[in-house]
Amino acid sequence: MTEVLWNHLTAAELRERAAENAVVLLPVGATEQHGPHLPTGVDDFLAAEVCRRAAELALPHTPTVVAPSVWSGLSEHHMAFGGTITLSLTTLHALLRDVCRSIQRASFRRVLVVNGHGGNMTALNALATELTAELSMPIAITNYFSVDRDLVRDTLDTQGALMHACEGETSMMLAAHPDLVRTELLPEAHGPEITLPAESPDPVYLAVPFDRITTSGVAGYGNAATAEKGERMLTGLAQALAGTLAQNPWKDLLDR
Amino acid sequence: MTEVLWNHLTAAELRERAAENAVVLLPVGATEQHGPHLPTGVDDFLAAEVCRRAAELALPHTPTVVAPSVWSGLSEHHMAFGGTITLSLTTLHALLRDVCRSIQRASFRRVLVVNGHGGNMTALNALATELTAELSMPIAITNYFSVDRDLVRDTLDTQGALMHACEGETSMMLAAHPDLVRTELLPEAHGPEITLPAESPDPVYLAVPFDRITTSGVAGYGNAATAEKGERMLTGLAQALAGTLAQNPWKDLLDR
Amino acid sequence: MTEVLWNHLTAAELRERAAENAVVLLPVGATEQHGPHLPTGVDDFLAAEVCRRAAELALPHTPTVVAPSVWSGLSEHHMAFGGTITLSLTTLHALLRDVCRSIQRASFRRVLVVNGHGGNMTALNALATELTAELSMPIAITNYFSVDRDLVRDTLDTQGALMHACEGETSMMLAAHPDLVRTELLPEAHGPEITLPAESPDPVYLAVPFDRITTSGVAGYGNAATAEKGERMLTGLAQALAGTLAQNPWKDLLDR
Amino acid sequence: MTEVLWNHLTAAELRERAAENAVVLLPVGATEQHGPHLPTGVDDFLAAEVCRRAAELALPHTPTVVAPSVWSGLSEHHMAFGGTITLSLTTLHALLRDVCRSIQRASFRRVLVVNGHGGNMTALNALATELTAELSMPIAITNYFSVDRDLVRDTLDTQGALMHACEGETSMMLAAHPDLVRTELLPEAHGPEITLPAESPDPVYLAVPFDRITTSGVAGYGNAATAEKGERMLTGLAQALAGTLAQNPWKDLLDR
Amino acid sequence: MTEVLWNHLTAAELRERAAENAVVLLPVGATEQHGPHLPTGVDDFLAAEVCRRAAELALPHTPTVVAPSVWSGLSEHHMAFGGTITLSLTTLHALLRDVCRSIQRASFRRVLVVNGHGGNMTALNALATELTAELSMPIAITNYFSVDRDLVRDTLDTQGALMHACEGETSMMLAAHPDLVRTELLPEAHGPEITLPAESPDPVYLAVPFDRITTSGVAGYGNAATAEKGERMLTGLAQALAGTLAQNPWKDLLDR
Amino acid sequence: MTEVLWNHLTAAELRERAAENAVVLLPVGATEQHGPHLPTGVDDFLAAEVCRRAAELALPHTPTVVAPSVWSGLSEHHMAFGGTITLSLTTLHALLRDVCRSIQRASFRRVLVVNGHGGNMTALNALATELTAELSMPIAITNYFSVDRDLVRDTLDTQGALMHACEGETSMMLAAHPDLVRTELLPEAHGPEITLPAESPDPVYLAVPFDRITTSGVAGYGNAATAEKGERMLTGLAQALAGTLAQNPWKDLLDR
Repeated sequence: MTEVLWNHLTAAELRERAAENAVVLLPVGATEQHGPHLPTGVDDFLAAEVCRRAAELALPHTPTVVAPSVWSGLSEHHMAFGGTITLSLTTLHALLRDVCRSIQRASFRRVLVVNGHGGNMTALNALATELTAELSMPIAITNYFSVDRDLVRDTLDTQGALMHACEGETSMMLAAHPDLVRTELLPEAHGPEITLPAESPDPVYLAVPFDRITTSGVAGYGNAATAEKGERMLTGLAQALAGTLAQNPWKDLLDR
Repeated sequence: MTEVLWNHLTAAELRERAAENAVVLLPVGATEQHGPHLPTGVDDFLAAEVCRRAAELALPHTPTVVAPSVWSGLSEHHMAFGGTITLSLTTLHALLRDVCRSIQRASFRRVLVVNGHGGNMTALNALATELTAELSMPIAITNYFSVDRDLVRDTLDTQGALMHACEGETSMMLAAHPDLVRTELLPEAHGPEITLPAESPDPVYLAVPFDRITTSGVAGYGNAATAEKGERMLTGLAQALAGTLAQNPWKDLLDR
Repeated sequence: MTEVLWNHLTAAELRERAAENAVVLLPVGATEQHGPHLPTGVDDFLAAEVCRRAAELALPHTPTVVAPSVWSGLSEHHMAFGGTITLSLTTLHALLRDVCRSIQRASFRRVLVVNGHGGNMTALNALATELTAELSMPIAITNYFSVDRDLVRDTLDTQGALMHACEGETSMMLAAHPDLVRTELLPEAHGPEITLPAESPDPVYLAVPFDRITTSGVAGYGNAATAEKGERMLTGLAQALAGTLAQNPWKDLLDR
Repeated sequence: MTEVLWNHLTAAELRERAAENAVVLLPVGATEQHGPHLPTGVDDFLAAEVCRRAAELALPHTPTVVAPSVWSGLSEHHMAFGGTITLSLTTLHALLRDVCRSIQRASFRRVLVVNGHGGNMTALNALATELTAELSMPIAITNYFSVDRDLVRDTLDTQGALMHACEGETSMMLAAHPDLVRTELLPEAHGPEITLPAESPDPVYLAVPFDRITTSGVAGYGNAATAEKGERMLTGLAQALAGTLAQNPWKDLLDR
Repeated sequence: MTEVLWNHLTAAELRERAAENAVVLLPVGATEQHGPHLPTGVDDFLAAEVCRRAAELALPHTPTVVAPSVWSGLSEHHMAFGGTITLSLTTLHALLRDVCRSIQRASFRRVLVVNGHGGNMTALNALATELTAELSMPIAITNYFSVDRDLVRDTLDTQGALMHACEGETSMMLAAHPDLVRTELLPEAHGPEITLPAESPDPVYLAVPFDRITTSGVAGYGNAATAEKGERMLTGLAQALAGTLAQNPWKDLLDR
Repeated sequence: MTEVLWNHLTAAELRERAAENAVVLLPVGATEQHGPHLPTGVDDFLAAEVCRRAAELALPHTPTVVAPSVWSGLSEHHMAFGGTITLSLTTLHALLRDVCRSIQRASFRRVLVVNGHGGNMTALNALATELTAELSMPIAITNYFSVDRDLVRDTLDTQGALMHACEGETSMMLAAHPDLVRTELLPEAHGPEITLPAESPDPVYLAVPFDRITTSGVAGYGNAATAEKGERMLTGLAQALAGTLAQNPWKDLLDR
């Protein structure tokens, strides 16, 4: 059986996966403005997409289940654009605590939170630390776009890394959900370059409302996107994530 | 444009819908055991399915948007079966508060929470009351299966109302997601009849673990399901829900 | 000894009741406007009255103690009338948690919350579920007016069930606390008929401020009340509640 | 009209009292072990008794309303005796916040919390400070037994101040609720002398479980109680409290 | 080794102190206006100073460690003066809970909170009670200025006890931190006499903003201060506190 | 006047600084094991030291105040070593919220949190974002060791960046607090090299207890430390931080 999605599996099948010590991938995204050309669900869709592909690749050797995705994150900085749903840090903490505790009670021991939203990065790092203590279970965290930074850089023509509604995200949406891209608006899909806060070399961090950075809602060059680049990224990132699972990052922290 | 899903829409499109005073449907389901034959996502899938269909029917006259579904609810009573993700009441409250506040900040004024899980019914009623006060915005609540109880009763052969993983839910899953039904296990898909707590005539309520009621995880007769009955229910419930929207239940509480 | 009230009993007597596996009845009412003719304590007084009578009837066969009543509930919808004290859902949860935990620490194992306020019904159902999990002790819940719906319907002339400051509540107050009824104002004591939200056939629920429903603060026909009808109801409801206790609703969930 | 109890008054009558700028007395007691001879409700009964008497004395010149009493407080130190209901500090804070806010929303501006339990004293002082800031309304606090310490000292034969289930409390119970005193157990009703923590000269405070201090549950000399001493205290304390209200302690903090 | 400050000790040294069953002193002060002549840190500095001196005196016979001081407390009543940092009661509770739990996890069993701010007194009493229950560890509490009230009274010329930015506090600051006293402003450093709320004979307590009491921010006679009086107080209070430790107030509550 | 420390300043002086639109630096450190040779207060001492030096450098052109340091942070990973005080993320959030709100109420508009502990980095980034929204005031965040990474790298002989109780921290302690370094234990002061989690190239993050990484409690080469390197770093980092203040990072977010 090759089904990897938690909500597509029956309880009995999930008990079997737990007995096999399967990894649970928990995508965490956002529902927020993504420029004129992309739907608000991008961060959720792409994190879930890479998780599903990675789990299918990993399944033969590393049993893996993909939990339903947490489709809302920390998007306060996008609120001025409308169409955005944001959680407080405290609510996100409570939600992840309850979900991870349920996963633990369902007899799984290895959880990897797979983030898809730049604005969640530092918070999820901090929450993973906190949940690890609260649940006495090692909660790992990554970003779907960080598992192979070289691939991202080499694939993109105008950017060195993901920005927002940019060449990278638009390309992956063209590959995975072409019907959801407003291609007629691609010419407007560009904006200033940014570095994700968690990766910025600037020593001082200030939460800047996104509408002070870009009027289009885009950072980077969505207008340079192609489905081919998107498919290359999705494929490569899924392979890299599957490779990460094969290395079993929990091995030193768990008995088995 | 006929797209109704929030996360498929762009921020600009959502601003337009808000300007049209669109209704936002917020499906709330569960991820919990559903017998040997159904996947754990049933309550989430069916609530979202009826919402989407209803919104598409309503769109020409009542602009409607379907938010991403809250796929976890109050499922403590199913935890013994495994495969179940449950939230505390406090976390569900916090999550709905943040989501509804974001919907409000996105300039929508009419929200209808559409529940798909019997175990959420009384809690969502109480939370709708509380959120209405907290947000100074009338938060309406219904269950997708309550909008036309006659239809449900008339369609089902073995039951008068929905139970759990039963003739009704199994039929609707055969209609909407036939690939997710383990049809080979349908013969085992039966259990004792129940009444949903919120609709029980018994004056005393006690939270009973579901494994004390049924060993199969089913209450009712999943083995009596057919896709035809399911399609009839999904169609009729969506029509009834669209009809409800047309009546504008908020009209006495809002100026417009 | 026939004393049934917790706060009238000494600690040693309560230890004895706990050793006899007594039931603890916990009345939960409200302090809120009740029309021109009734005091604000009605829901509290009547829940406590039925509990006390039921406990006295039950005592010989089912040892029973009545805790002091929680005299404030969820009354936001009555705030516009003045004279009303309301709790947030979170505070009511915290209060019931601490009280029930104390009852548990006092070595009682069977708790029945007896509600007296329509606005508390769904919340108490949800809280009983939550507290059962939090305390690992089955917290049962009922409404004093639900234990014999036939009696209520048969006794009342103008209504089929309790409404608010209505024929039913006014009659019971005339029976139990005649000095607290402003009989000179009875002619004004009427208003539109309602159905309690938890029992409404309407599939959509919206929290409606009570002053949008009635200017008198009454729903139903307080002007049709008599002490005789009230006494009949109090007697019958107490008997029904005592009968419920005799059936030991906890028996399948507790060892003894 | 001479009724002073909030829950005996109608909403319209309470609106009138608020318009007269009435004081609201909020008794806060406890439900906890009180030796072999006294019921667990003593602190609640006596605080409410003194409040009611004081309000009746004050009514002609100082309109006064007595809210229903908060019958549970901080009684962790009595839990070992059984029969005791205790709240966490956080729950007591939440409860008082909601009750005081409701009083404020009912258009009253002057609230005096009247404590009846030694174990609540410092907490209520701190909570009054906090609530004053949270609600932007001056919340005053006193103890019913502190309003005339000379009277207490002069009336009692064996003690200089109230202790626990002692000469003072037992005397007042004999005066107010003689049927609730187990007079046959009075000979056992004695224990070591204590000073209430908030009034102790000892510079170091440690929360000591009460069963480490007394095996009878009594501190002081309940066996020296008489109804006459009790009536003298109740009368005098009510007069002192009414006198306090006449001085309007809020006058410098409120415009009127 | 005579080092007593936690943050000056290494982890290994602290493990040794814990193995010796050392007492941990936890100073809790405030950062708030202290008149024209004193810095805002006074309450923090003096509590920490007395703790350090007492620990050095106690060390040979009673191993003692001084934790870093909690430099913010409950100072809402000083906010109008500026320069003041205040915590909510809930935050102070959370902070002390985490600090005391960490001390407990570091294998210490005896904690004495040493308060330096009048506005914290009742709250810390209540919090010590609550933390004792929450942590199952006796948390003791004192005020640095209460350990020898006779000394304070005998030393001061114009006051019988500490007030605020007064003869007492100013004298101790002249002794411990003369460079931080604006001596040129001493002539202005006076205001009305007060009694600390926790020690007031007035039976009714109301939180009064400090700017309603004094325009200078001083209560008492800072202008009567001398370094000699300050040194005498610091020395004597430290001796008294060390003497208190020698008596081991925890001895009846802990096995060792 | 050149005093820069909040708690050394009077309320009137702080009101003046606020009127000058001074920056408030808020050091946040930790109290945690720092190997055999360093005291537990290192992260607190060094963050406060760099802040003080930077503020003194900045004062002539950029009025600056240094708040008392938050000496406890997120140190769960060090608990196994003893001597460590850790806060939960929720408590740290509450504490910073109250402190920053007080700073805001004291009329300051520019706050820079200056972190001194690797384990706080991502959490403070997330909390700065959250507090910016909660307080409607831009809360900036940096690490004292990030303001000039080149200087750190160039100064150290064995490391490219700070680790823990390492060449860098030990050198700065030798410069700022030589009496607190156990120089006789320097030979043992070494351990494996690490990268701070927030700066790790590893895409997967897992919270690893520090005792799984190092038995000495050191990561890096404390034994390579010298006071000269420490002084060079402290001087340079303070200059860099002062330079950062001169650039006014808030300028685009505030009117003045």
